[in-house]
Amino acid sequence: MTSKPAIGFCGLGAMGFGMATHLVKQGYPVTGFDVYAPTLERFSQAGGTPSTSLSESAKDKQYYICMVATAQQAEQALFSDDGIVKGLPKGSVLYLTSTVPSSYAQHVEKKLGHIGRGDIYFIDAPVSGGAIRAGEGTLSIMAGASDAAFEKGKFLLDELTAPSKLFIVAGGIGAGSNMKMVHQVLAAIHIISVSEAFGFAARLGLNGNDVREHIVGGKAWSWMFENRSVRTLKEDYFPGASAVTIILKDTGIITSMANLVDFPVPLCSIAEQLYITGLDKDFGPNDDAGLVRLWTSQPVASIQSSLSEEDKQAKLELVSNLLNGIHLCAAAEGIAFAKHLGVPLAQYYELCVEAAGGSVQYKEQGANMIDILEGKHGQAAANLQSYRDGLKVTIAEARDKKIPLHLGNGALSLLEQAGKDVNLTSLLKLYSVQ
Amino acid sequence: MTSKPAIGFCGLGAMGFGMATHLVKQGYPVTGFDVYAPTLERFSQAGGTPSTSLSESAKDKQYYICMVATAQQAEQALFSDDGIVKGLPKGSVLYLTSTVPSSYAQHVEKKLGHIGRGDIYFIDAPVSGGAIRAGEGTLSIMAGASDAAFEKGKFLLDELTAPSKLFIVAGGIGAGSNMKMVHQVLAAIHIISVSEAFGFAARLGLNGNDVREHIVGGKAWSWMFENRSVRTLKEDYFPGASAVTIILKDTGIITSMANLVDFPVPLCSIAEQLYITGLDKDFGPNDDAGLVRLWTSQPVASIQSSLSEEDKQAKLELVSNLLNGIHLCAAAEGIAFAKHLGVPLAQYYELCVEAAGGSVQYKEQGANMIDILEGKHGQAAANLQSYRDGLKVTIAEARDKKIPLHLGNGALSLLEQAGKDVNLTSLLKLYSVQ
Repeated sequence: MTSKPAIGFCGLGAMGFGMATHLVKQGYPVTGFDVYAPTLERFSQAGGTPSTSLSESAKDKQYYICMVATAQQAEQALFSDDGIVKGLPKGSVLYLTSTVPSSYAQHVEKKLGHIGRGDIYFIDAPVSGGAIRAGEGTLSIMAGASDAAFEKGKFLLDELTAPSKLFIVAGGIGAGSNMKMVHQVLAAIHIISVSEAFGFAARLGLNGNDVREHIVGGKAWSWMFENRSVRTLKEDYFPGASAVTIILKDTGIITSMANLVDFPVPLCSIAEQLYITGLDKDFGPNDDAGLVRLWTSQPVASIQSSLSEEDKQAKLELVSNLLNGIHLCAAAEGIAFAKHLGVPLAQYYELCVEAAGGSVQYKEQGANMIDILEGKHGQAAANLQSYRDGLKVTIAEARDKKIPLHLGNGALSLLEQAGKDVNLTSLLKLYSVQ
Repeated sequence: MTSKPAIGFCGLGAMGFGMATHLVKQGYPVTGFDVYAPTLERFSQAGGTPSTSLSESAKDKQYYICMVATAQQAEQALFSDDGIVKGLPKGSVLYLTSTVPSSYAQHVEKKLGHIGRGDIYFIDAPVSGGAIRAGEGTLSIMAGASDAAFEKGKFLLDELTAPSKLFIVAGGIGAGSNMKMVHQVLAAIHIISVSEAFGFAARLGLNGNDVREHIVGGKAWSWMFENRSVRTLKEDYFPGASAVTIILKDTGIITSMANLVDFPVPLCSIAEQLYITGLDKDFGPNDDAGLVRLWTSQPVASIQSSLSEEDKQAKLELVSNLLNGIHLCAAAEGIAFAKHLGVPLAQYYELCVEAAGGSVQYKEQGANMIDILEGKHGQAAANLQSYRDGLKVTIAEARDKKIPLHLGNGALSLLEQAGKDVNLTSLLKLYSVQ
């Protein structure tokens, strides 16, 4: 007889499967629901209890995790006639760990009240970190809920995350989703920047392995670059680990919310158009690292570079310039949007530095940006000329070689808009809508 | 014996052929050079004298027009060992009517001096209006030169243009090219907006003929839309009348110059990436109206709309919103860049309203923008909320239907950056780099 409580789980996709089986390994009896039979079979082999009924999967479970892909799916899974909420016992804890608009998380809270299930402790707790960390129980989690809900349900979040990676965000239901959304501003921009960088490099005659070696560990590093580039080099896109449709969905949450509150997110918008263009090419179900195919059909790891060592180094610098400029502006876009939404900036910073949204630029310049927005003007006038100059050299080469650099040009437009004496303050001002 | 002087002409492409044969019809003996033999044959049939040598085509010609495609071609044609300048007699007038960077026109002037041909009267005189108007002698011409050069050579510009369409731009050599460049800011954005609008409409289930009928004559009219849509509907792209490579070249002149002087041209940059994407799809030699194929492979005139009349009207409005927002921001981008470069704004306005860069938005809001930039603040606070709201509805639909709207999103980002109380002044401020 186990001492650990039974858990219900819905949505055994790449992330959900990792989370659910991690809980199984920790000794929890987990009943998992999914619409895809082979996944249920795999879950059973991993020691879980498969279920083909949502309400059955929730029956007698004091703790239930919903990890479906979209708000639409969550609405169906939670509230359909034979859904999760129907099955949940009185006073149970319901975790929504999907990435959804904060307004949707708030809708769930209200609806539970309206249908007489205000007894359920609801926790808005989107996650980040990818399938591997899901399986290790070291995800980043951004959670918002009532104190009572956390008192009863926080222990299970602790199981899914490493101690420093659980972020309890002030503000109740919706606060976790808002934090995740502003984290995804970085993710949305960084993911497609990996493909833009590799595509640009390939068309300059650089081998992808050289590009990875040059970027990882340098100033142009991002978590996404290090993570995605492995799959780019192996062409591990089918299905890979994270589909284009997933990041497109997250990007759409950002741009919809931005439009709703009249906030500019120019780089996220550019990223969104590129993800949609990927869909048009039927890349939707493939790994997002495969979007490099928007730039080149050649496998980037197979390019035979005929460049001299000197030329090669010069061209690798152009790729660094590109990523540095994009990461800098992505940091400004994310931090300014977080500020606009009232997301706690110190927490946002701490979260992103160690999570999938991290980059050297975010770590270094992001800290200065937050100081500025919080009225500490130490680095306010720090000159960004070198970023702009770097981007200009890169973009002149791209123009000459006729290589599209959507994000790179978007970043340069922002740095030009920031004025002759481009600095952190003038860059952030582009986002300060009054 | 003719009383009209002999003219030399180099570059019998779509525009050049129209210009040269128009002069033939006006009774000028015209000797034309081109590298493509069938064109020379056609020119001969039209009454011109074909030549296969550049210096021969210039021999004894007091007036010579160079209408090649690029600055690189001009350099070769003018200054090679067997080039035009070599053949020109003393005191002759040389017109460069190609669209080139103003810095290149200035280089020609200097080089003529350096090689001891300061006797040549050089006129920097790019043109606009398309092949049909070239053949009618009603092109718009933007000319800069010394008074002495105009005194001797203006009569020939008068032959190529209608009376109200010759713009003598103050500032000498380079001033004509700068005027043309800022005109092309509008052209570069408007041309690809035609394809974005038709592609969006097609994917909403609208027939292209309905779209044209709705746009032409309405607020969302542009010269480019009316002109290009004829070819879009007929799929007249092979080669059509104006290749993607031509507008890409002009766009590159704008973005290079903008980077040189650190001026932001976000919409032109987006347009440039789309033209390059067109090249990637081998659309380069095709008419730019064929870029609608970046959005849909279906001929837009053959779409069988299954929409109710009410739905159809609502969706046509979304297309209008898209074009209105783009045209408004294009006007701001062009006018602000003109101001930055010291291009006379009143003349720029007059030129564009009647030329290929024209749009209802330019005509109406452009006038207000110029007032603001010239310190007359009458319409400064004119609210642009309706443009932004219109774009937001359009873009929400595009997001929902997964249709990429690159320019539309770029325009919305600008209107969001312009702040809560978006108006003409706050929009123009995005371009006021100090």
